[in-house]
Amino acid sequence: MADARRYHDLPSPFAMKRGGALHGAHVAYETWGTLDDDAGNAILILTGLSPSAHAASNADDPSDGWWEAMIGPGKPIDTDRWFVICVNALGSDKGSTGPASINPATGEPYRLDFPELTLEDVANAAHSVVQGLGIECLACLIGCSMGGMAALGYMLQHPGAVRTHVSVDTAPQAQPFAIAIRSLQREAIRLDRNWDHGRYSDDAYPERGMSIARKLGVITYRSAMEWNGRFARIRLDSEERPGNPFGFEFQVESYLQAHARKFVRHFDPNCYLYLSRASDWFDVAEYGDGSVHEGLKRIRIERAMVIGVSTDILFPLEQQEQIAKGLEAAGAQVEFVALDSPQGHDAFLVDIEHYGPAIGGFLDRLD
Amino acid sequence: MADARRYHDLPSPFAMKRGGALHGAHVAYETWGTLDDDAGNAILILTGLSPSAHAASNADDPSDGWWEAMIGPGKPIDTDRWFVICVNALGSDKGSTGPASINPATGEPYRLDFPELTLEDVANAAHSVVQGLGIECLACLIGCSMGGMAALGYMLQHPGAVRTHVSVDTAPQAQPFAIAIRSLQREAIRLDRNWDHGRYSDDAYPERGMSIARKLGVITYRSAMEWNGRFARIRLDSEERPGNPFGFEFQVESYLQAHARKFVRHFDPNCYLYLSRASDWFDVAEYGDGSVHEGLKRIRIERAMVIGVSTDILFPLEQQEQIAKGLEAAGAQVEFVALDSPQGHDAFLVDIEHYGPAIGGFLDRLD
Repeated sequence: MADARRYHDLPSPFAMKRGGALHGAHVAYETWGTLDDDAGNAILILTGLSPSAHAASNADDPSDGWWEAMIGPGKPIDTDRWFVICVNALGSDKGSTGPASINPATGEPYRLDFPELTLEDVANAAHSVVQGLGIECLACLIGCSMGGMAALGYMLQHPGAVRTHVSVDTAPQAQPFAIAIRSLQREAIRLDRNWDHGRYSDDAYPERGMSIARKLGVITYRSAMEWNGRFARIRLDSEERPGNPFGFEFQVESYLQAHARKFVRHFDPNCYLYLSRASDWFDVAEYGDGSVHEGLKRIRIERAMVIGVSTDILFPLEQQEQIAKGLEAAGAQVEFVALDSPQGHDAFLVDIEHYGPAIGGFLDRLD
Repeated sequence: MADARRYHDLPSPFAMKRGGALHGAHVAYETWGTLDDDAGNAILILTGLSPSAHAASNADDPSDGWWEAMIGPGKPIDTDRWFVICVNALGSDKGSTGPASINPATGEPYRLDFPELTLEDVANAAHSVVQGLGIECLACLIGCSMGGMAALGYMLQHPGAVRTHVSVDTAPQAQPFAIAIRSLQREAIRLDRNWDHGRYSDDAYPERGMSIARKLGVITYRSAMEWNGRFARIRLDSEERPGNPFGFEFQVESYLQAHARKFVRHFDPNCYLYLSRASDWFDVAEYGDGSVHEGLKRIRIERAMVIGVSTDILFPLEQQEQIAKGLEAAGAQVEFVALDSPQGHDAFLVDIEHYGPAIGGFLDRLD
């Protein structure tokens, strides 16, 4: 399969928010559609913690992307009209420089020597891609989940760089429940002896810790309501049951196991730890003298759509409402969309029936 | 400190629901108040997964019990009127026979040779205590959390043994979200190398797995709403922060750590696994040809109070409503109390201000 990834070299040194700098770093990105001559039709998508820049299929890589149903000709994010960019987060291992990359100073992987990472750094790296493409102002900045927090950081740090914004299933800061979940995910990885303070190898990989972290993620990304309909108390067939004591018995358990299998050894544990902690650290209140509302009021954009779902336990709907109110107080024309999708936080990835028309409608109405 | 525990020898052999039998087994219990001559004033309390039979202080053990504010002279469960019994669950390690006990057949701890445990076995062991005390029919059976499920099993298996019932923060069966959480807790313990298929020792105890299991428990026992008010994003003082990379930084993280410390090495991991799995297995629908409602309709009692809270993510309020409707359809006079306590599933342990008058009022109205 061809690789649609392009690489953008970040300025060297690339200064990090909490100190330190990266040398010779880059981020991976993909694009869809054609940039207008005046570069006025660009949309940037900032992703959740784990996806790559491959948000949708394109000529170079026809495999389905993580938001395949949303992006393409005639789709809600219509690539006949828009030039769409998706950037793999700085600190990830899907093509961008992160803790799994080689540190040019030592010739060895950074591991825990990678500087402290914030979502502002993720935003700044994406902004550098946009600038490199000759785009002064994005027609729209779309941020999903962790990417929604990075998008707020993007707009706070680069006034005038964004005309409109779509905020998807995200928050202006992590609440203690989300911090507790992420802390426990990090702890499961750290407690795995194979993690070994970040010095694991393929032969001794912290598989148990990563599996627990992923399963806890999936539990909090979905919702109890969806699972009642989907799994109820259905048992596995006896031949599907592992022989070990206390092995899996219910369908919901093998569902989690299948998700963990797709993740473990496909995501670098140190990258996961860095991005997870960056999500805990992000706080719009830092830009508003301790007030989230005042922080949001510093964002200067024309219009926004803020979407969330009532079943999201990780980024509860009240937090999306907080974003909507803050952007409105800042002078933007804001549409707030509260959905009842049963799928929880992950609804934006699966409930395209509702997210598609909402986001597509917002973009269609832009002049 | 004196020990208020009494021990009741179970019939030997004691047949288990899923097969096998225990020989020479016993359960621990404590009592408060005085049994009337006609044995008509007895209340039995069945506990959640981890508490002992020490629900409240008494002459032999003046230390606070786990429901101290609820039980005693003049308290909601008034020991001036009622004779109160609390039984430590069969399978627990707080005085009752369980996987940590010596198997008389081998002279070694049972560990995973303990027969498969169900909440019906827990109920039957408690019923045996009640019979041993000369009580034919309980004035009231109170079940909290896991104990609420065991209470349903008690009433289904022993018609005529209970006059009235108080159902607290429980469910007629585990939903997939609760199964997923408990499965992940069990997995964290099983994946700990020190667990070693149940053959751990004090020197090699599965501390990491138990810590993760307990923290996940605490996260799901409480509620996001409570934590927003209690912890928000408050940081630990720098001297409280551990030096390790990715160590704790937020108050909510040290709160979880403190809870884990109080649990790890104070609860036997195998006992935890057995009781956790028993909670997943319990299903009133087994008594109603696959229907929870039909199962509940087989319970014959005079009156019931069913209480739950809207912030409980482990045993959601809809499940308490299901119990209330089923008991009503069975012919009982039912009071359904839906509270908005912010504390989540654990509200019954802390929101005494609301649980006290509700349960106390119900008991006061009994003739």
